[in-house]
Amino acid sequence: MKRHLAASALVFAAGAASAQEVGTTLPDAVGRVAPALQAYSENGLFGKVWAGEELSTRDRALVTFAALTTRHETQNLATFTELALDAGVTPAELSETITHLAFYTGWGNATAAAEAMAPVFEERGIAAADLPGAQPELLPLDEEAEAARQENVSGNYSAVSQGVVDNTEQMLFLDLWLRPDLAPRDRSMVTVAALIAAGQPEQMTFHLNRAMDNGLTREEAGAMLSHLAFYAGWPRVFSALPVARDVFESREN
Amino acid sequence: MKRHLAASALVFAAGAASAQEVGTTLPDAVGRVAPALQAYSENGLFGKVWAGEELSTRDRALVTFAALTTRHETQNLATFTELALDAGVTPAELSETITHLAFYTGWGNATAAAEAMAPVFEERGIAAADLPGAQPELLPLDEEAEAARQENVSGNYSAVSQGVVDNTEQMLFLDLWLRPDLAPRDRSMVTVAALIAAGQPEQMTFHLNRAMDNGLTREEAGAMLSHLAFYAGWPRVFSALPVARDVFESREN
Amino acid sequence: MKRHLAASALVFAAGAASAQEVGTTLPDAVGRVAPALQAYSENGLFGKVWAGEELSTRDRALVTFAALTTRHETQNLATFTELALDAGVTPAELSETITHLAFYTGWGNATAAAEAMAPVFEERGIAAADLPGAQPELLPLDEEAEAARQENVSGNYSAVSQGVVDNTEQMLFLDLWLRPDLAPRDRSMVTVAALIAAGQPEQMTFHLNRAMDNGLTREEAGAMLSHLAFYAGWPRVFSALPVARDVFESREN
Repeated sequence: MKRHLAASALVFAAGAASAQEVGTTLPDAVGRVAPALQAYSENGLFGKVWAGEELSTRDRALVTFAALTTRHETQNLATFTELALDAGVTPAELSETITHLAFYTGWGNATAAAEAMAPVFEERGIAAADLPGAQPELLPLDEEAEAARQENVSGNYSAVSQGVVDNTEQMLFLDLWLRPDLAPRDRSMVTVAALIAAGQPEQMTFHLNRAMDNGLTREEAGAMLSHLAFYAGWPRVFSALPVARDVFESREN
Repeated sequence: MKRHLAASALVFAAGAASAQEVGTTLPDAVGRVAPALQAYSENGLFGKVWAGEELSTRDRALVTFAALTTRHETQNLATFTELALDAGVTPAELSETITHLAFYTGWGNATAAAEAMAPVFEERGIAAADLPGAQPELLPLDEEAEAARQENVSGNYSAVSQGVVDNTEQMLFLDLWLRPDLAPRDRSMVTVAALIAAGQPEQMTFHLNRAMDNGLTREEAGAMLSHLAFYAGWPRVFSALPVARDVFESREN
Repeated sequence: MKRHLAASALVFAAGAASAQEVGTTLPDAVGRVAPALQAYSENGLFGKVWAGEELSTRDRALVTFAALTTRHETQNLATFTELALDAGVTPAELSETITHLAFYTGWGNATAAAEAMAPVFEERGIAAADLPGAQPELLPLDEEAEAARQENVSGNYSAVSQGVVDNTEQMLFLDLWLRPDLAPRDRSMVTVAALIAAGQPEQMTFHLNRAMDNGLTREEAGAMLSHLAFYAGWPRVFSALPVARDVFESREN
């Protein structure tokens, strides 16, 4: 991952270059029907927000990709796939991200993302054989944390839906979350991005804590909120802010 | 409806056949950019979840169709229309489902679903004349329950929007809900599926109770939650679980 | 704006004409797979709801456009753009609306709307030069209200995300909201419509109050809720009703 971050640092060495690259994501039609929106995009979003140093360009690209997948914005997703790859997100990481988001935002969002990504992967010569398979060697499990999670979920919901309880344990926490080709910190980051984009702050406490346990800094989390305001809309972020504040405060003690 | 259930039992006699049929809903692109997602689909979702006996394949197909319509996943909806028809959902029931969902998840979701369904209906020789018309003979009204509902809504919201109060009574509860070509139990089931898929657990208490009054069992409701986790995303279901638990518990007394 | 309202009054002089014009928004496929939905559309939604006098046709068209943009319903958005223009919404107002909604429901919704609108604008000879630019002369700022807002947001969230706090002030309240080509009342109206359509009643109190401060009447707000039930789905409106009631009641004292 560090190698890719370094590569990304070259590609996006200057703010101007970054803005230019990110600028490819703006459809031409915008300038024709909303010149002001074009200006906000170029001067504000691409020129300033994406260049913000609190969060790497690589992370911004991954978080944006996760948000757009969650919102089923397939139209423009090929361009954001290219942007993410150019910014140092690996094909394996993108592949894992949509697999992860199939569970966290619904199968149809992930399969539609796959359809948008496939031509980009093909053009760049990325084949299925290069991507993570079904049964990699899993990361070690934090057994204590998992026992606590499972006891909590099972105690609350076994009488409602044993299927949810079992699948959550077997498919998600004993398998998906332990897949090695997306770092736990990144897995958590895309999960939080998906929750913000989907308007589910009520599910964010567990996952933002987990993200920070896995290495996401408070500064990065704050910058992610600021970044996502543009892609998920201000109100989504304003509903997430009080949850983030509570999580931050709870970790101070 | 029972005839169709029997037909479906033939089509989906074996788990393998079911998985094969459901497998047609997975775009080829998935295997090219996310082999792991393909494996989760084939082994987990299609091979195990869809084969689960707590909820009939016919119900799973109807619930999935309702969730995808709610999420405006039009890309793949023709395939899910075929799947639903093959699983024993009648054309009349699908027609009523999108009419119902026009009110419960927005006109544009229903009209986009109609556009996805039309080629399938045409190919199978299903014409408008075969489908429920505008003014069928309505089911009998439970006057006591409706009076209580109307008094509650009118008392709370007449001063806010008399239009909502009146349309809810006249168009929904004295008309739409009494249309005979989708059984009340199924009408409630697709409503609950839509609320889960749209992320509106706060509106679920009334409709899950109604669904269970109309014959949906607790086991079926639990299996629906487990099934929808895949199509609406885990967090949607985790936000619905506490509501379902409260409804289940309130009905025990 | 008044001139446009007058023009719209001509176009939509009779309820029948209005229903006919609005009827262009219904895809043909609906009649083929759901005759009942076609009947509800023509008799209920187009013939009665759109003709309701509590909210002007021009406002209904603008509010619907905002809701569909928020829901990423791009398929049908060109037709709704034409409807809005015919109902007296100016090209400048539509241009400002998507610019505004870029911030309030996410960049991708606004840019997708731009792509749907562009062919309509081109066909009608509306060029970028006719539309509001990046730096118009701004409306005067209510400094007291803005100081209170900023103190509140900054006090709550500076420690979480200074980026959100700063962008909210600099880009939204000292710039976007002061742009003159969409009246403050309309800007608030599309914001509230977007919040209802996105299922974010928890963000509505501030904006509905602001809308009413800016001239939206209680009757218009109630009619907007009733209208949006059809386009955003009944449950979205039922979750917004208690918030609207609280806002109405709080303004009585």
